[in-house]
Formats: sequence, C-alpha cells, structure tokens
Amino acid sequence: MIQHFKLTEGLIPHYARLLCDTVIPFQEDVLNDRVEGVAPSHAIDNFRNAADLLRTGEKTGEFFGMVFQDSDVAKWIEAAAYSLLIKPDAELESRIDELCDLIAGAQEADGYLDTYYTLTDPERKVTNLLEGHELYCAGHMMEASVALYEATGNRKLLSVMEKNADFWYRHFITGGAEGYPGHPEVELALMRLWRATGNDRYKELAEHFINVRGVDPDFYIKEREKRSWNIWGNDPTNREYQQNHLPVREQPDAVGHAVRAAYLYTAMADIAAVTKEPELTEACFRLFESISKRRMYITGGIGSTAHCEAFSTDYDLPNDTVYAETCASIALIFFASKMLKLKRDGHFADVMERAFYNTVLAGIELDGTKFFYVNPLEVIPGSSGVICTHRHDLPQRPGWFPCACCPPNAARLLTSVSKYLWDQEDGVLYSNMFAAGKLTLSDVEIEVETAYPFGDTVRYKVLSGGTRLAVHIPAFTRKNYTVSMPGEYKDGYYYLNVREGDVLELKLDMTPKMNRANIRVARDSGLGAVTVGPIVYCAEGADNGGEVFSFSADASSLRLNCETAAEIGGFACAAADDLGKVFTVSVKGTRLVPDDPDALYFTDEYREEESELKLIPYFMWGNRGINQMRIWLPLK
Amino acid sequence: MIQHFKLTEGLIPHYARLLCDTVIPFQEDVLNDRVEGVAPSHAIDNFRNAADLLRTGEKTGEFFGMVFQDSDVAKWIEAAAYSLLIKPDAELESRIDELCDLIAGAQEADGYLDTYYTLTDPERKVTNLLEGHELYCAGHMMEASVALYEATGNRKLLSVMEKNADFWYRHFITGGAEGYPGHPEVELALMRLWRATGNDRYKELAEHFINVRGVDPDFYIKEREKRSWNIWGNDPTNREYQQNHLPVREQPDAVGHAVRAAYLYTAMADIAAVTKEPELTEACFRLFESISKRRMYITGGIGSTAHCEAFSTDYDLPNDTVYAETCASIALIFFASKMLKLKRDGHFADVMERAFYNTVLAGIELDGTKFFYVNPLEVIPGSSGVICTHRHDLPQRPGWFPCACCPPNAARLLTSVSKYLWDQEDGVLYSNMFAAGKLTLSDVEIEVETAYPFGDTVRYKVLSGGTRLAVHIPAFTRKNYTVSMPGEYKDGYYYLNVREGDVLELKLDMTPKMNRANIRVARDSGLGAVTVGPIVYCAEGADNGGEVFSFSADASSLRLNCETAAEIGGFACAAADDLGKVFTVSVKGTRLVPDDPDALYFTDEYREEESELKLIPYFMWGNRGINQMRIWLPLK
Repeated sequence: MIQHFKLTEGLIPHYARLLCDTVIPFQEDVLNDRVEGVAPSHAIDNFRNAADLLRTGEKTGEFFGMVFQDSDVAKWIEAAAYSLLIKPDAELESRIDELCDLIAGAQEADGYLDTYYTLTDPERKVTNLLEGHELYCAGHMMEASVALYEATGNRKLLSVMEKNADFWYRHFITGGAEGYPGHPEVELALMRLWRATGNDRYKELAEHFINVRGVDPDFYIKEREKRSWNIWGNDPTNREYQQNHLPVREQPDAVGHAVRAAYLYTAMADIAAVTKEPELTEACFRLFESISKRRMYITGGIGSTAHCEAFSTDYDLPNDTVYAETCASIALIFFASKMLKLKRDGHFADVMERAFYNTVLAGIELDGTKFFYVNPLEVIPGSSGVICTHRHDLPQRPGWFPCACCPPNAARLLTSVSKYLWDQEDGVLYSNMFAAGKLTLSDVEIEVETAYPFGDTVRYKVLSGGTRLAVHIPAFTRKNYTVSMPGEYKDGYYYLNVREGDVLELKLDMTPKMNRANIRVARDSGLGAVTVGPIVYCAEGADNGGEVFSFSADASSLRLNCETAAEIGGFACAAADDLGKVFTVSVKGTRLVPDDPDALYFTDEYREEESELKLIPYFMWGNRGINQMRIWLPLK
Repeated sequence: MIQHFKLTEGLIPHYARLLCDTVIPFQEDVLNDRVEGVAPSHAIDNFRNAADLLRTGEKTGEFFGMVFQDSDVAKWIEAAAYSLLIKPDAELESRIDELCDLIAGAQEADGYLDTYYTLTDPERKVTNLLEGHELYCAGHMMEASVALYEATGNRKLLSVMEKNADFWYRHFITGGAEGYPGHPEVELALMRLWRATGNDRYKELAEHFINVRGVDPDFYIKEREKRSWNIWGNDPTNREYQQNHLPVREQPDAVGHAVRAAYLYTAMADIAAVTKEPELTEACFRLFESISKRRMYITGGIGSTAHCEAFSTDYDLPNDTVYAETCASIALIFFASKMLKLKRDGHFADVMERAFYNTVLAGIELDGTKFFYVNPLEVIPGSSGVICTHRHDLPQRPGWFPCACCPPNAARLLTSVSKYLWDQEDGVLYSNMFAAGKLTLSDVEIEVETAYPFGDTVRYKVLSGGTRLAVHIPAFTRKNYTVSMPGEYKDGYYYLNVREGDVLELKLDMTPKMNRANIRVARDSGLGAVTVGPIVYCAEGADNGGEVFSFSADASSLRLNCETAAEIGGFACAAADDLGKVFTVSVKGTRLVPDDPDALYFTDEYREEESELKLIPYFMWGNRGINQMRIWLPLK
C-alpha cells in the first residue's frame, strides 16, 4: 500500500516528514562518517574497502564496527527508498543508486556478500552461523533491495541480492549444508524477495530455515566444536537465546533475544499464511499470545531483561530495568502485521498501535537526530544509565550507537508506515491504523481526514470507485464508538461496502483511561497507567516540579487537555512545534510530604498534600534533559 | 556482658535455646561432613589435612572449598564458645578443645595459619592480599580465640592466635610490608585480641591497617602485576569494592561489598572510640549516616545489588532483586554497637534492633537448620531464585552453602546477643535492647521481665546493689512511652539511678504503624510497610489465599493480634511452637479483581473487592513452602 497512500496531516505524516527531512539525511551522514561527536560508523567505508579489495586485490582500509555493520546500510537504503515515495528526491535516488554500485562491487563472484568476512578473514566465511550474522546481513540487504525495487523500480540491488540468495540456496539446499541462522531475519527477507521476484527457491529456502530450526538443538554446539574462534563467545548451549531449543512448531513461549524471536515469528506467520499449515499457524498464535498476554509492556515494548536482551518469565515486567529495545517493538509490529494475514482480528492491529505509538516513536528524539536503543518505562536520575542494574536504561537519547541497529530500523519502519496502515486481501480493504491522507487504488480512491491519535474522529471520504472496507475498531474504544454508516462488527473490525460519495465517520472514545495490569505483574501492583486511545502517558519531572515519585493518583480525576509542545513547555526544537496539538492529561491526587525530607523511613511524620500531575505522551519523554519519568503511578 | 546475663523467656531467649540445642550441633555436623544433602564443607577436614602435612610431611587429603573455608570453623567456635555461657555442655567444651589442638597443629612454625595455602601452594602465601583472605581467616580465628577465652578461660586458641598475630605484626610493622587486607575483618579482630591480651602491638597493627588503607589506592593493581595467578579474578581497579578508593578518613559514602565495608567501619569506630581522633570519628558518623539514612532497607538489610554484593547509589533499594546478605546485617550490628561507644545515641541501638529482629532472624529457618544468605523483601514465585535478575533471591532457605559465611556468622551473633543487649561504661549501665533475664554484675543485680518484642512492657527489678541506668527508648515509641520512675531523657536513652528494691517499668508503644519511605526511594513510591515495635511485617501467600499482589491497604485499618505459630497455621516444626505468642497484624483494604484474570492490561473491566490481609513478622517468612511474600504494600 506504500505506493498508493499519500500522507497529509497529523502525527504519522509529521513523522514521515521528519524522516525525509531530517532522519534520512542525518543517518546518511552518520553512515558516511560526516557527523562529529557520535559513535563512528564506517558502514559505507566497509563496502568501499571490500569493493576495492575485490577489484584490485589490494586492501585500501580495514573493516570497522560490529560483525553486522553492513545491515546498518541496508536498513538505511530501505528507509531512504521508501522515503522517495513520501518525498521524491532525485539526488537522493541517484546517491542510493551509486551506493548500490558500491555494494555490487563488494559482492564476491559466487554471490557472497559480507564486508566483515571479505575484509577480515575469508577463511571464516559460513563457519559460524551462531554469531556470524552473514544471513542476517543478507536478509537486511534483501529487504533493502525489495524496497528499492518497490519504491523506484530500480532492480540493481535486487539483482545483487538474487545472486546472493542463490549463493545461500546452493549452500543449504543444493549443497545440503546443515544449520540455520543464529539471528533470524533472512527468513522474512527471503519471503519478501520471493514475492518481489516470483522465484520459488527463495520461499523454499525460507521454509527450509523454519523447518530445520531447533530440530537439531545441538547444531551450534557441534558447529562451535569445529572452529577455534569466536566473535563474542555466544553460548551455544543457551538454546532459548537463539530460539533453537525446540523445533519452531513446538515452541511453547516467546523466549530468548527479543528481536531474534520476533523476526523468526514474523517469518513463521508469513509462511503459515501462504502454506495454511495448521501446526505452524497454531505455533504463531501461541507465540503471539505468549507475548501479548504475558510478556509485553503497556508500551508495546518486549524483552524485559538486559541479560541477553531477552524475554523473561511470564509477567516479569520491571519498569526501570527493562530492556524493550526499539528494534524488538519494530519486529513485534512486523509479527502482528503478519498475524493479520492469518486472522483478521483487531487484537493484532491493537498491538501494532501499542508498539508503534509508544516504543517506536519514543525511540526517536523529537528533532530526529538522537535515538533510544532501550526504552525504559521509569527513569530515576542517578540510577538510570548509571548503576549496573540500570546501566542500559539511558535517561537521554545518544546520537548513535556502536551497535546501531535501532536508528535505521525505526527509519525504515516509519517511511514504510503505510504498509501497516492499510492492507487489501480477497476484495476487502483493511484500515488497520489511522492517518490522514489519500489512498489511490485501481478500484477505489479514499481520502482520510483525522487528527488521530489527537482527535476522536476518522472520516473516510470515498472519492471514486467502491470497495468492501474493514475499519479497525481499536480495543480501547470497542465499548464506545459510533460509525455513521451501517455495517457489521467482527473481531475488532467494522465491515461495510462503500462507494463513491460515501463518507464514513468513525467516532472513537478518546477519554483518558486509567489502566491496570494483571495482578501477576508484581511490579505494577497497586499502580495505574494512563492512556488516551493508543497513546501511553507518562509523568516527567520537567512538567511537575522535578518530582513525580511522591505522587499518588486519583484514578477518577483524569482530565484531557490539548496543547502544543510550546504550550507544554521546555521543548527547544522546531520539530516539536511541528507536532501540532497533542493531548496531555492532568490527574489529581496527593503528594507525600514528609516532615523531615531526609528521613529514610517514617510513620506519622508526614502529610498528604493535594496536588496535580501533568502527563505527556510517552513518546515525547526525554526531550528536556535528564529528569524523573514514570508511566505507572501509585493509585490512591 | 555476655558472661553476666542469663536469658530466661521470650523471643531472644528462644533463639538462644534454638542455637544451643539445634543450630550449633547442626553446624558442627555440617563442618564435619556428617549432614546428607547439603553443600559439602570439609572445613574441619582441611585443618586435619594441614596438620597431618605439617606433622608428617605427607598430605593425607586435599584442600576443599572456598579460599576462606577456615573462617567457617572460626565462626562456629565463636558461636559454640558463647553457647557454653547459655547452656554449659562439658562434652561440647571438650570437643572445642580438641578442635583447638587440631588448629594448633595446622599452624606453621612461624605462626602462619591458613589451610588453603598450607595445603595448596605455600609459595602463594601473602602475595594476594586482594583475594587471598589470609587476614580475613586470621581475623575470624582471633575472634574465636577471644570468645573461647572469654567464655571458658581456655587460652589454647588464644595462644595460637597471638602467635599468628605476631606473624602479621612482623610482616607488616617490623618488616614494613606494604598493603592492607582485601576483605577487612582482621582489624576489628585485632582490637578484640588487644583487649583480651593487653598486647598493644595488636591495636597498633589494627590502626596500621586503617591508616594505610586507600592511601595508595593502586596497591592492589601493583600487587596484581607481581603475580601470575588469581583466585576469582577480582578487579583491582574496582577500588570501591574493597573500600580502598580513598583513605578511610576521607570516604564520603558507604560503598562496595557491604560486608567488607561494615567490618571495616566497625574497626574504624572501635579505634576511634579508643583514640578519640576527631577525623576518624567524623568519618564513622558520616559512613553510618550514609547507610542508615540513604542505603539501608527497612529490615536493616544492606547491599542493594547482587553485582559485587554491594551498596548501590543513594535510595536505590529494590525489594525483589535486593542482596541484603545476612552477614552484612550482622556487620551492621557490629558497626552500630561500636558507634554507641562514640556517642550514646539511641539511633544506633535502633539500627541494631532493625537489623537483628528482621534480617538476622529471617536468615535462619524457624527450625534452626536452614539459612538465607540473601534476604529479599519481596518474593515472586517463578521469578525469585529463578530468572537472572533474581537468581540470588531464593524463596526458600537452603541447608548450607558452598560459600557458607552467613550461617555460622548468625550463630555467633545469636549466642553473643547479650553483648548487644547491655553495655557498661563510666559507671552507667546501658540497656540497648530488651530481653528477659537476670543480669548479675559486681555492683548491681537486675532481673528483667518482658515479652518484648511481643509485649509492651519492660520491667527492671533491682534485686541488689545499685547503678546509674540508661534505658534505650526506641525511635518507634519516642513520642509515646511511660516510665514508672523519674529520670531524664537524652538522645534516645532514659537515664536514672536505681537501687535495690526499685522496679522500673517501661511501657512502649506497640501499636502497629504504617511506614513510608523517603520519596527518593522510587521502588517504595506509593507503598507502605507495617511495623510493630522493631519488627517489620510481611504478607505471605500462605496466610492470604496464595495471592498478595492484588491487595491495596487502608493504612488506617491496622489491627494487632497475638497468636501462636499453630494459630497462624502451616508451620510444621516444633521450634515454631516454642516461639510462643507473637504479634500478627491484619490490615483492611481492597483486592483488584479483573473481569478477565488473563488480561494483561485493562481499563474499566475490574472491580475492587473489600478484603483483609494478614501480616506476620518478616523473620517468620519462607517457612511454609514457596509462596508470594512482600513487605511494602500499595496504599489506597
């Protein structure tokens, strides 16, 4: 749908503009090492050096960065390619094309492409699937090639990656090599490459990886025994980390590294939607439920623990020591979008919204040049980002990371957001998420007007043609919404036929709500979190006299306000003003005021002072210096 | 005072009996490897093997255990020696005497004593102060020797340890060797040895270690460069871990390994009380305040983080991932008792009570045969003791540990508890903590009647003689207490003169109180903890339908009950019945009852059901199988 929907006004279009105007150019500069004061990338240098080496036999520079540094370039190409659909830019398109030439030059004659191995030790190629990330990098570059082809028709990178996919096909299928990717990613990419090229071998290879994974859960142990070197020393016996503890169809819970897991599940759901295989389909439902019912933050963050960047046990959802990597929530959106192919159930779209509007948007500084890798739900200055248990939970976004997976991942998601807004299948047009814009399909043309998520109305004006339309009715409004045209509700969607001249008006319940968590979530015991529609709210010190932990909220006193960033105050960037009006929430309650502010524990020596807390959208946090932040508030 | 006070009835006397009848014999069996199903000790075997080797030149067995395995024996001797004052036992006394012969046999000709080095690699002696624990083991054996001498007059071990102390004096003072102990302990032990023997060199050596510590903060780095081996690989640059980041007089905060820190501070306070040196005295007050005002749990637990078993930053006091080692609270009691020598301020006695009645007693299973190393304030079955962030927070006491520092440490504290109950200085008799019994001094004989901490009256009957008496008025009762005789209150003590025939009756405020924490303690935000007198209360699933996290408490609804363990229910050991009547607390409130118990987050779909929670003394927790437990409760 990405080619067919033109975003106009509102939050999502704002981010699309920010991406085109700021994030894509900034990241291009970073990848080319033109930005001072951020972690160096050298990601494009690596391709140049590899191409030089392959062309001349002489090395012009050493490899720099993580073993998967190539994937930063791939994700950026994907983001930049899609950005051309939002904002055409011939110069950018031409620079991408040149970059494709560079990448083609770094490809070896047999189709192999990975600058780390080409530049460091070619002998080590394809001998360390556990840590090697060759298939991971290949997957991202396949995705980039498909995106570029979809956005511009440019087949240059697509050809490179077909040749690369053929290399892997020969290795694993024709050659019968054992093993499967340590970091899943290529599986979902191969499915995209299959769709873009129609070459069934790519689907076959994707299915192969899914089918063999975990069947021999000792594969990585045996692989480890055959080599004398490690990259990080990943433990091959920690099978859950890389989801090879069991064949994928038998895995009961979402476990291990959260990004790996969700990429894997995305491919599983994508394949199941094609093959209709019941066992794989059931596994997808089971794993999605494991996440969305027991292992997901209210922000759509996943991965509770920094230890292995992983899922934890059911209901272990600490707010201050959380991991909740931006990439993991992006992967969760991928997974949810594929689950919608297995069942048109609004629950999956709800999870997409949760992850998108909260963790993914929070991952980006409002000015578009700084990024979170980890997304805490609570920030305690002095502890967060400092002490060993909280070292990963930074209270401020850095400009770039030595491991820079998240920033370009967020970029590619945001420039391709229309994919998640819309879907079409079997003659039904699905509106999964709401954004203002104009959809132009062969059979129907629809204009959407909405200020969502900072407005309560979504208006679909059918400009021409007609279709069966299914509009997502988010869970938050399911008990209280109106639609202006007759239709039928089923599983979180409202179905109706529309034709030229129809105006469907959906009114949503945008009153602020106090959420509670399952009583098994010990860390949220006695606490409540405010949401308005899909947006989670947080209290920041910046709006509340510097102190938010002394406050207990009266759940019945929520009041909605509508303000600009300038009116909220303290946001010193133009992009924040460009957000326009956003909802804020005020909540009444009391503050604990001890007689002796230095007493550690006390009984009667305090008073409870009437007070009010101002809450802002969680995605806006961390833009005004280091200060306290929390989502879950004690309830009176 | 330990020789002069005979405990009679109540909680402390109960534990004294439990120690004599069960704990000391059980630990003797463990140290002799006669207990099935617990971690093996071989601690006494090590002495036998070392003695055999020194006597015959032939090794009859290998060293087993931690590098400081010897100290388990030392702490047990200290505990057993003091137990003889509570319950004379000629056979035990004779077995201790035999053990002293064994230890004497394991001492090398120059006075050196450490079975690890004697049995493994004598070349490594005194070359790894950072990790070597030779001075730590020496310190504990010095303490044992003093205890045995105090309790029985037996000088056998005292002579051994004088010879050992002379060895260290020659090494560090006469020989001028650089360095200081990696794990402080010998400093406080040398002060005890000095008092027992009158040999000023021991005090001189203790002062030396205090004076040189941290003056060269790179000492361990240089030491490390001189040797090719490590024990654990302790990082010599992590100076705060072993408190050598600054000269001790300049250290601003309590940092690093909590046990090491508190042993060090104990020696500092002990020395300062003797030397009256202002700078050292100020450092002691500063470090005590750092702990008691900013880095201590309501249970008197210290060490917030499992990472290095260490203090964390100010106010970082997580309840479920806490470390709060039993040994650390024992060390805190030592430190507080020495602070009382610097200033007679009830605050120090309050901290002693807090640590003693809560963390130390909780460290021991009610039946006396299982022990906690780590003392969580919140237990989440499925997470506690299982997931990586909570692995150390066991929900049940094991029988023994490979690193078994805590069980015998608790034993020696409990058999010497009278030291902390009473003190006498400059003609004033201080009653710091309350327990029923009879005190017989040369100038006065006093009988104390009390059911404290499960009764509100302490009665001092002067049977003969007279004294100036100072009775601790605990902070919890300072606003509300009565005394039956005129006197004067100062700094948490009530001073008066008593003589034969006087009966001083102190009435304490034992109403249950809801405590709040400083607003900077993020983890206790919106929560309250119940105390009755010095006892902290907890809610366990066992008394509350298995579930305590759904409950929010009405702070004004606390009700005190008085019950036996049998009446509480579920305690299946005779020792629990022997506790007699204890206070329990019931608190009214509401339970969150969601419409869908499996929903992860929800807004209106729940009800708040009127409910009541039963609270038991924290020290009784974990005696009825794995179940939920929490101290801090959400407040309505």
